[in-house]
Amino acid sequence: MIRSAAMETGNRGEGKIVADHTQRIVLAHGGGGQLTDELIERRVLPRLGNNVLNELLDSAILRNIPACDLAMTIDGYVVQPWKFPGGDIGRLSVSGTVNDLAVSGAEPLGLALSFILAEGFAGKDLDEIVNSIAQTAAEAGVKIITGDTKVVGRGQADGIYIVTSGVGRVRRDAKVGPSRVKPGQKLIVNGAVGEHGLAVMLTREMPEVTSVLRTDAAPLNKLIAKVLDAVGTGVTFMRDPTRGGLAGLCSDLAKQSAQRVTLNEVAIPIRSESRHAAEMLGLDPLEIANEGKVVMAVEAEVADRVMEILRNDPLGVAASVIGEIGTEADGRCEILTEIGGRRVLQKPYGEQLPRIC
Amino acid sequence: MIRSAAMETGNRGEGKIVADHTQRIVLAHGGGGQLTDELIERRVLPRLGNNVLNELLDSAILRNIPACDLAMTIDGYVVQPWKFPGGDIGRLSVSGTVNDLAVSGAEPLGLALSFILAEGFAGKDLDEIVNSIAQTAAEAGVKIITGDTKVVGRGQADGIYIVTSGVGRVRRDAKVGPSRVKPGQKLIVNGAVGEHGLAVMLTREMPEVTSVLRTDAAPLNKLIAKVLDAVGTGVTFMRDPTRGGLAGLCSDLAKQSAQRVTLNEVAIPIRSESRHAAEMLGLDPLEIANEGKVVMAVEAEVADRVMEILRNDPLGVAASVIGEIGTEADGRCEILTEIGGRRVLQKPYGEQLPRIC
Repeated sequence: MIRSAAMETGNRGEGKIVADHTQRIVLAHGGGGQLTDELIERRVLPRLGNNVLNELLDSAILRNIPACDLAMTIDGYVVQPWKFPGGDIGRLSVSGTVNDLAVSGAEPLGLALSFILAEGFAGKDLDEIVNSIAQTAAEAGVKIITGDTKVVGRGQADGIYIVTSGVGRVRRDAKVGPSRVKPGQKLIVNGAVGEHGLAVMLTREMPEVTSVLRTDAAPLNKLIAKVLDAVGTGVTFMRDPTRGGLAGLCSDLAKQSAQRVTLNEVAIPIRSESRHAAEMLGLDPLEIANEGKVVMAVEAEVADRVMEILRNDPLGVAASVIGEIGTEADGRCEILTEIGGRRVLQKPYGEQLPRIC
Repeated sequence: MIRSAAMETGNRGEGKIVADHTQRIVLAHGGGGQLTDELIERRVLPRLGNNVLNELLDSAILRNIPACDLAMTIDGYVVQPWKFPGGDIGRLSVSGTVNDLAVSGAEPLGLALSFILAEGFAGKDLDEIVNSIAQTAAEAGVKIITGDTKVVGRGQADGIYIVTSGVGRVRRDAKVGPSRVKPGQKLIVNGAVGEHGLAVMLTREMPEVTSVLRTDAAPLNKLIAKVLDAVGTGVTFMRDPTRGGLAGLCSDLAKQSAQRVTLNEVAIPIRSESRHAAEMLGLDPLEIANEGKVVMAVEAEVADRVMEILRNDPLGVAASVIGEIGTEADGRCEILTEIGGRRVLQKPYGEQLPRIC
């Protein structure tokens, strides 16, 4: 809850925004007193404010929600560094949470944000992150409806952590889940994989290397809505290949559906820059986290239509049919390699890439 | 999301729970791979599992929610130390989030939990916290429906942070908010104030002192439901006096309602042990956080009925009418002191008690 900011916030208006870039976060900014109010009023509300958030109650109230199935998700973001090519922890936190709702077939109703800040964190950095949250939320067309701020000691929390929760309304025409995945269905991804994790790892581990790789972090709810509008239950499964990457997703899908998942290596879009970076870092691009990708299983007869929709959207121009569901029903995930072999794709064991989301 | 635990969890059942108390959290427990699955399967699901959580999807799905106003809240918990007399960070995180929903007039539909763990955190400590979460959720009659786990470096995150989000359905007979607070209404609190913050501060700052003080952290949703069942819109305002304490709550209420709030010092329940502890620590008990208290404004004609209900519940035995709304309508909060004087109650400026929630 961020209820403690005083009521007059609305009246003071934007004239009050004094961008004090030299200011740093102090413990008292998390104390729930006047300084917390000031932080919310000066740094948060002017950028994220809306009719629900501005009420600053113990709970945000979303009025007149019709009868529905409700989706809820939560994710913690502890990425290091908090800023990387193409994005930052703010963009990541909104995209990740919106995408978790969207791949569940839900339209986001609102997001809740919890900031954990270290004493000494720069006010201008917080402003940059809040701006990024505002921009990403606008892209997704979703509101931040409530939040909380805590401040911990200097040197704790790596500067900033953000935990984002989201609620959404499940579309009535969305029926997705591993149990609907059946032989003959096609697997589609909306673009090249591996770029988020690689962009973060290069920034952190090899700052001397110049690379064109940028995070793919983006909210996919509008793209997914277009596909569902067109083919509805023709989509049988959706998931975002974050931690564990495409390999983790597909091996989980095989297990959970008890179906054979077969990927076609040459069809998996990967930039050559990603291959090189992964090789330098000793990583497999298929195991690397993405933050703007969705893998869909679709009925074979709608695959062309889905591909057309994806490719006509900036977030899907490099979409590809990457595999299909086989008839073996053995819960295995295999990949057909470029040279014509087959290998089993396993779920990564532990932490291939620490702290990339 | 904690979707990555494999499907067979349900089949393995409780026989698989090996309480390896020597085990410590490693970075890979947060990597989204097999080790994350194992953490969820062995340490979380056996204690918190339910039909929604066990599906481990990207989003939890709550089916067939009727048309309603929806409440959503989020709070980060960074209390130090994580265990203190009468409770721990787990009890706190569930109570605080349930109470934020309840004081908004909402019945909780489900909670989402995000763990941020430091590498090296003891598995047995995590087990203890998860058990405490399970017990508190059972007291409240609310389910943990989704979650997330991240692991950060050794020495970060003070061992453990928990962020909890909750969604609830607003009761149709609940109409609470500062705008409904009017002259003549009574202010009621369900028991003695100051004990949570003092119990934590004594543990942290004066471990050599033995005290009977314990946290009051408790979920109040059932108590509040009893009151609303009986008097409905006779309750005009509710809030939990957490950070900023009773003083912060009442000064905010005066401002937000633009009414005069008058507290009667002798009527405010405070244990003598709390007075002594506050004196030792140089603190004002009225500014200290509570985690099992609610302040209600009620129409004068239902005050006796509300007091009767509260006093017949273990969580309200020490309930008291602590003040009323005056006719001055000046947005000030005054307190009538024991010796017959009057002073203005101000909102605490910053962090009187760092890291107590």
